[in-house]
Amino acid sequence: MATVKLWTDEEVAADPRVQAVFDDIRATRKSEFVNNFWRALANQPALLEQTWSSIKEVMMAPGALDPLTRELIYIAVSATNACSYCVHSHTAAARAKGMTEGQHAELIAIIAMASQTNALANALQIPVDPEFER
Amino acid sequence: MATVKLWTDEEVAADPRVQAVFDDIRATRKSEFVNNFWRALANQPALLEQTWSSIKEVMMAPGALDPLTRELIYIAVSATNACSYCVHSHTAAARAKGMTEGQHAELIAIIAMASQTNALANALQIPVDPEFER
Amino acid sequence: MATVKLWTDEEVAADPRVQAVFDDIRATRKSEFVNNFWRALANQPALLEQTWSSIKEVMMAPGALDPLTRELIYIAVSATNACSYCVHSHTAAARAKGMTEGQHAELIAIIAMASQTNALANALQIPVDPEFER
Amino acid sequence: MATVKLWTDEEVAADPRVQAVFDDIRATRKSEFVNNFWRALANQPALLEQTWSSIKEVMMAPGALDPLTRELIYIAVSATNACSYCVHSHTAAARAKGMTEGQHAELIAIIAMASQTNALANALQIPVDPEFER
Amino acid sequence: MATVKLWTDEEVAADPRVQAVFDDIRATRKSEFVNNFWRALANQPALLEQTWSSIKEVMMAPGALDPLTRELIYIAVSATNACSYCVHSHTAAARAKGMTEGQHAELIAIIAMASQTNALANALQIPVDPEFER
Amino acid sequence: MATVKLWTDEEVAADPRVQAVFDDIRATRKSEFVNNFWRALANQPALLEQTWSSIKEVMMAPGALDPLTRELIYIAVSATNACSYCVHSHTAAARAKGMTEGQHAELIAIIAMASQTNALANALQIPVDPEFER
Repeated sequence: MATVKLWTDEEVAADPRVQAVFDDIRATRKSEFVNNFWRALANQPALLEQTWSSIKEVMMAPGALDPLTRELIYIAVSATNACSYCVHSHTAAARAKGMTEGQHAELIAIIAMASQTNALANALQIPVDPEFER
Repeated sequence: MATVKLWTDEEVAADPRVQAVFDDIRATRKSEFVNNFWRALANQPALLEQTWSSIKEVMMAPGALDPLTRELIYIAVSATNACSYCVHSHTAAARAKGMTEGQHAELIAIIAMASQTNALANALQIPVDPEFER
Repeated sequence: MATVKLWTDEEVAADPRVQAVFDDIRATRKSEFVNNFWRALANQPALLEQTWSSIKEVMMAPGALDPLTRELIYIAVSATNACSYCVHSHTAAARAKGMTEGQHAELIAIIAMASQTNALANALQIPVDPEFER
Repeated sequence: MATVKLWTDEEVAADPRVQAVFDDIRATRKSEFVNNFWRALANQPALLEQTWSSIKEVMMAPGALDPLTRELIYIAVSATNACSYCVHSHTAAARAKGMTEGQHAELIAIIAMASQTNALANALQIPVDPEFER
Repeated sequence: MATVKLWTDEEVAADPRVQAVFDDIRATRKSEFVNNFWRALANQPALLEQTWSSIKEVMMAPGALDPLTRELIYIAVSATNACSYCVHSHTAAARAKGMTEGQHAELIAIIAMASQTNALANALQIPVDPEFER
Repeated sequence: MATVKLWTDEEVAADPRVQAVFDDIRATRKSEFVNNFWRALANQPALLEQTWSSIKEVMMAPGALDPLTRELIYIAVSATNACSYCVHSHTAAARAKGMTEGQHAELIAIIAMASQTNALANALQIPVDPEFER
C-alpha cells in the first residue's frame, strides 16, 4: 500500500487542476490508462504539474537522444536505486516504445557490468587518472 | 590513494599474465594509456582477466545497442552508485566514442529526472500497477 | 517473510529480557501494539535493548529539534535508502505525532528535489567550493 | 574536477539566459557568491532555469515547514546518497539559516540511527505490519 | 512479477545451452531445486553461463576464505544494496552452509553498526587520515 | 574538510568526558593514534560514547565470528555505501588484524560478484522463491 491515497478517476474529476494533468497524460500517451504514480502525486497538485511537465520535456521533447535510449537510461538509474515501481513502469514504457528482447538483454548486461566495476572502484578507492580531468 | 598497489608498467612487465591483458587493452583501444582501474586489478590476475574479458564482450561486441548508447547507460549507473572514478572514466570514454555536449546534457537531465521520480516512488511506496506485470 | 522468526507475545513472555523491552515499548508509546521490527530484533536481545535505548534517546529525549522534525528526517533517510519497512513505519509515526498532509507533501517535495540535485552533483562530479570549507 | 566546464562570471555575462538566472540567485540570496553547482548547470540553460526555479519553490516558498527544517531534510537525503558536494553546500546553507551546533548534532544522530535501523530492516527483510497500511 | 519470463523446466529442456547450465547447477549443488534467479537469466544464455561460472569460481573455489565467510560477505553487500531477492537467497545459502543463529545475529549487528558509521562519516565528510594511506 | 571541527589532543584534554573515551580507544587498541572519525564525533560526547561502546561490543567482544571476519563484513558494507573514509579505515584495520593480500583479493571479488547479481535481481525484479521463505 502507498503511504498516501491513490486518487480514483472520480476523485480526479472533482479537482480541475488534477483533471487537467490527467487529461494531458491521456492525450499525450494516447491511452486511457493512468498509472499509480500519477494517482499518488495527485495529492500534491503543484508537484504533479511540475513532474509531468518535466517528464514530457526530458523524455519526449525532440533532442539529441531518441526516446527509446532515454528509457534505457531511465531503467538503468531506477534499477540502481532499487526502485521496484520505476523498474516496472519504465520497462513497460521501453517495450511500448519498441525495445526488443535483445536490447533489453544488453541493457541488463551493461547494468550488471557497471555495478560490478563501480563496486571494484569503490572497494579499492582507485584515484581518478589525471588523463580523465577535463 | 587506492587501498591496493597500482602497478607500474615495469611491474606489469614482470608478470606475463598481467602483461598479456595490458597488451590486449592497448591493442583493443589503440592507445598506450592504461588507466588506474586496470593497474589496481593487476593485483588479482584472475579478476583482471575476467573483468577485461567481460568489458570487451558487454561494451564492444556487435549487438543491438550501439557503443555510445552503452556508455551512456554505464554513466547512468555509475552516477547513481556515487562512483566518482567510474563517472570520470566513462564520461571520458563516451566522449572518445563521439558523445556530443548535447547528448551529455540530455543524459544528465534524464539521470536527474529518474532520480527524482525514484525518490518519489520510494517515499510514497507506490504499489506496482497490475498493468505493468508481464 | 522475514529471514528470522518474528516473536509472538507468547514467545516474548517466556524471555524476561525481551519482555522487559516490550513492556517499556508499550509503556513509552502508551499503546499495546508492538510492530514487527521489534519482534524480529527479539532474536538478538542485546541488539534489541541497545536499539530501543538509542531510539528513545535519539528520537524522544528533550533536545534542540522537536519530535515531528526528527520523524521527518527519519523518513527522508529511509526513503533514500529504499527501506520500504522504515518508510511505512516512520510515516505512520510522523502522522501519530501530528504530521499534517501539507507537511508530508512538503517533505516529499524536498526529498525529490534533493535526490535530483544529488544526482546532478554526482553525475557532473562538481568540486566543493572552498567557501563551503569550515 | 567536474566532468563539464564550470562557467566563470565572464562566460556567464556572455549568455543572457544564464546571466538572468545568476542575477536572480544573487538577488534572492543577497550575496555575490554563486557556487559551483550553478556554474556547472550553466552548460544546460533549460536545466539551470528549471532547477533554480524548483529550488526556490521547494526550499523558500512559504509553507508548512520552516526553511531550516527543509535544509535539515536536504542534508539527510544528501548524506544518505553519499553526495559530498551536497552535504557541504547544504550544511553551509543550514548554518546560514541559523542551524545551531546542537541542532546539527541531533540531525547527525538521527541520520545515523535511521541508517542503522534501515540496514536492520533490509537485512532481516521485515514485513510491513498491516497496522501501517493507510 | 519479474520483468522477464521465468523459464520452466520444460522451456529449459528445449534449449541445450541453458539446459547445460541448469544441469551443472543441480550437479554442483546436489539438489533438484533451481531458483528463480537462474530462470530469469535463462533469457540471456551468455549472461547465464558467465554469471554461473563466476559464482562457482568466486564462491566455491578453494581459497583463502571459507565458503560460509563468503556468504556472510555476500549477505552484507545485498542488504546494503536493498536487494530483497539476494538477501533471501543468500541467507538461505548461508544456512545451508552451516550458518548458526549466533553467527547470523553477529552478522546483522555488524551490518547495522557499519551502516551507522558509514552514515556518520558521509554526513560529517570526515577526511581520510594520512595514516590510512597505503 | 569535515563539516565539523576535528578535535586536537589539546581540545580533547580540556573535556574530561571526551578524554575518557580517547583514553579507552588508545588503551584498547594499544596505540597512541586516534583517527579523524573519533575527532569528529568528539563534538557530540553522547554519540561518541555510544558509538565507541557499540564498536567495542560488536567488533571486539568474544563471539561466533572471529575479529578479522567482522572487519571483512564491515569493508563490504562500507564499499557498497560508497563510504570512502570507512573503506580506508577498515581496510587498514583488517590488515592490522592479519588480513592477507589473498584474503583481501577474495573479499574484493565477492563484493564485485554480489554487486553484479544484486543489480541483476533488481533490474529484473525477480520474485523471491517460496523455498527461501523461513
